[in-house]
Amino acid sequence: MLEDLKEEVYQANLALPKHGLVKYTWGNVSAIDRKLGLFVIKPSGVDYEKMQASDMVVCDLQGNVVEGELNPSSDMPTHAVLYRHFTELGGIVHTHSTWATIWAQAGLDLPALGTTHADTFYGAVPCARFLTQAEIDAGYEANTGEVIVETFKQRQLEPLAIPGVLLHGHGPFTWGKTAEQAVMNAVVLDEVAKMNLFTRQLNSFAEELPQRILDKHYLRKHGKNAYYGQK
Amino acid sequence: MLEDLKEEVYQANLALPKHGLVKYTWGNVSAIDRKLGLFVIKPSGVDYEKMQASDMVVCDLQGNVVEGELNPSSDMPTHAVLYRHFTELGGIVHTHSTWATIWAQAGLDLPALGTTHADTFYGAVPCARFLTQAEIDAGYEANTGEVIVETFKQRQLEPLAIPGVLLHGHGPFTWGKTAEQAVMNAVVLDEVAKMNLFTRQLNSFAEELPQRILDKHYLRKHGKNAYYGQK
Amino acid sequence: MLEDLKEEVYQANLALPKHGLVKYTWGNVSAIDRKLGLFVIKPSGVDYEKMQASDMVVCDLQGNVVEGELNPSSDMPTHAVLYRHFTELGGIVHTHSTWATIWAQAGLDLPALGTTHADTFYGAVPCARFLTQAEIDAGYEANTGEVIVETFKQRQLEPLAIPGVLLHGHGPFTWGKTAEQAVMNAVVLDEVAKMNLFTRQLNSFAEELPQRILDKHYLRKHGKNAYYGQK
Amino acid sequence: MLEDLKEEVYQANLALPKHGLVKYTWGNVSAIDRKLGLFVIKPSGVDYEKMQASDMVVCDLQGNVVEGELNPSSDMPTHAVLYRHFTELGGIVHTHSTWATIWAQAGLDLPALGTTHADTFYGAVPCARFLTQAEIDAGYEANTGEVIVETFKQRQLEPLAIPGVLLHGHGPFTWGKTAEQAVMNAVVLDEVAKMNLFTRQLNSFAEELPQRILDKHYLRKHGKNAYYGQK
Repeated sequence: MLEDLKEEVYQANLALPKHGLVKYTWGNVSAIDRKLGLFVIKPSGVDYEKMQASDMVVCDLQGNVVEGELNPSSDMPTHAVLYRHFTELGGIVHTHSTWATIWAQAGLDLPALGTTHADTFYGAVPCARFLTQAEIDAGYEANTGEVIVETFKQRQLEPLAIPGVLLHGHGPFTWGKTAEQAVMNAVVLDEVAKMNLFTRQLNSFAEELPQRILDKHYLRKHGKNAYYGQK
Repeated sequence: MLEDLKEEVYQANLALPKHGLVKYTWGNVSAIDRKLGLFVIKPSGVDYEKMQASDMVVCDLQGNVVEGELNPSSDMPTHAVLYRHFTELGGIVHTHSTWATIWAQAGLDLPALGTTHADTFYGAVPCARFLTQAEIDAGYEANTGEVIVETFKQRQLEPLAIPGVLLHGHGPFTWGKTAEQAVMNAVVLDEVAKMNLFTRQLNSFAEELPQRILDKHYLRKHGKNAYYGQK
Repeated sequence: MLEDLKEEVYQANLALPKHGLVKYTWGNVSAIDRKLGLFVIKPSGVDYEKMQASDMVVCDLQGNVVEGELNPSSDMPTHAVLYRHFTELGGIVHTHSTWATIWAQAGLDLPALGTTHADTFYGAVPCARFLTQAEIDAGYEANTGEVIVETFKQRQLEPLAIPGVLLHGHGPFTWGKTAEQAVMNAVVLDEVAKMNLFTRQLNSFAEELPQRILDKHYLRKHGKNAYYGQK
Repeated sequence: MLEDLKEEVYQANLALPKHGLVKYTWGNVSAIDRKLGLFVIKPSGVDYEKMQASDMVVCDLQGNVVEGELNPSSDMPTHAVLYRHFTELGGIVHTHSTWATIWAQAGLDLPALGTTHADTFYGAVPCARFLTQAEIDAGYEANTGEVIVETFKQRQLEPLAIPGVLLHGHGPFTWGKTAEQAVMNAVVLDEVAKMNLFTRQLNSFAEELPQRILDKHYLRKHGKNAYYGQK
């Protein structure tokens, strides 16, 4: 079942090491079929060189495995929660990419300091809090998703306008309308995390991008009258 | 029309990811035929792996598309303005290359701290100011070009002696007598931006290159009696 | 003799430059056959492009060469000491990988600041002291092993729970149940060393990972009820 | 003439971009035939992809071209001076490799902070002073060599014990008994420059490697009783 989506998710997972975002089997990508309410995700800890499209695992939105002989990524329940609450999402990516993880370990929101950021993220990328002991005990991975949802609610953020989050002490999740876009957003997030760290080292007074430039860049690509790319 | 120039621009665009200056479709290169007053530029947001020389778009100096089925790069009007004002230019490159963008985000001129810089840039590379709301509204991309021209006028800089600029909060533009040289200048700019950031971190008192060394290195390559390379 | 182990050690050595952990012939990997009490190690200073599996050298736990026409890695006696004292080890890796070496040169323990660290190392990776003149004179390489053993004893660390060490002014050793795992731990150590350096630069108050998260991540992968990967 | 040496120099030049030490045609390698008193060097500004072994230029120790249709590297007179004064040298390399150039731009000697350094350089790598206007006018490239020689004399350094130098505001020269060793020393120098910069950032009190460790590592590889590598 869902052979096309499996191929798409497989290819998106292979894109992670190709873009230098993961080493070994770290990281995982999923994509959802909204009509069926099922998503496809990478199996856990399988060597990328041996992995095949048919190894992808099909899960439902309650986090149950529906099809597949391998265990799904251990982060699967986080994906399920995100798909359940953020209904616009088509694909989700988790990595420990170097520079985004550095901001996550520092426990800091990633501010918008340039147009590379603004072309994809319409404002700062939030850093979500650590889970409590009770949350860990009750289900670490699912509650990781819940804390992300809480973060977006508290800050009144639109998931597709800020298509990513940093988990304190852990690393980034990104998402998009498709798995491919989620991967692209993971690439952008890591690059922006690198740029912004050194920007502030070079000039600790470096200001956030003025709102008018943030608006212009985000909206020329994603707004109603977007004119970037081809029709 | 302009098949040779299209091929040249196509190859120069492919050189950007090869040199690690762009990810995905970020960045764009153009080149001009001064006799016809037309320039050729990359289409907007087309995957580098699918892009062909025949996809390049031909534009005039007023920023009108003259030939091509695809939309030109959204930064095309910036190129048009630069070709109109800086009449020595044969090719122009725009990237969000990591280290040059870091200086752009920091809002700082890139000083000449070494001969790697002096071999290409005859002094500091200026950082141009943010656009105003009025300038954005009146035409963001064209006015980006106007602000670059303003910066070079105010500082009395020769465009071919300082073949590049940093846009505050955005990234670099570079140029040259050809598209290939503009790409090379983009490579140098990014490398120098990296070196200079860490030079000042290593020694915050690191002085600018003495004028006599700057003169020697720039002029042995670009002066009247240049003796670098082959005749 | 030990042809399979030689092949394994050969492949593990080739993995070092592939993962960017060594340049030229820097670094070495060994693996042990616990039944025979013999280990196989890379020869000293042989070009990776010319090296063959049959060039691997077989040694005993007293550091004697048992088979092989080439000299073993000059660090061989360190491996012998580690295999003798840490009886759970199946493979050992030594590199001068950039970021782990930076922490070693700084003479600092590498703290656990994130889950990338916690997935492999159950706490800080210790930095072992410099050898004394007497220790150098009595056998530099063997005593390097003794100082590592001393460090783990004094701090009451389990070698497989903290599968690596930094040698002050030198670089890292890592180990695991197999040579392949020891290489993977070397990759993780270098990546974590990079992340942690910049984490503390970004936020000098960045706290160590809370114990509950450290427990969760380490134990879901390595604990009795581990559920990461496939069965 | 000197076909074998031309091939050796050609291969050594190709090794520079392979090791990430140069971009485009930056950098140059030479090697000398001491019996003939002639050295072979890369031509100036020739694309590495088009360059052939037969393009290498033969020069004498006074800096005259003896054979070759192309102009030699503009830095050729520096090589001539070094071969004349440092009679043990067999090969010389000049690059603008990123991290060594950063120390050169900072105008600082590169201290020995670890064994990676000590395995190749028996102490700090000196930073040579800027040339005066008179020295530039009288012959910039030859006097660059003279300033290197002056630096080694004033500090009483052995060229083969410290096989490299940093030129203030410029970049490194390295050398060795062969062109291949000179390239290897250029690789080590750049790596050590990177490590030492971040070591001091991580711990500004990081001490220089104790003399006893410096001795041990340098001498086990280069001393009378060296036991590293194969016989």
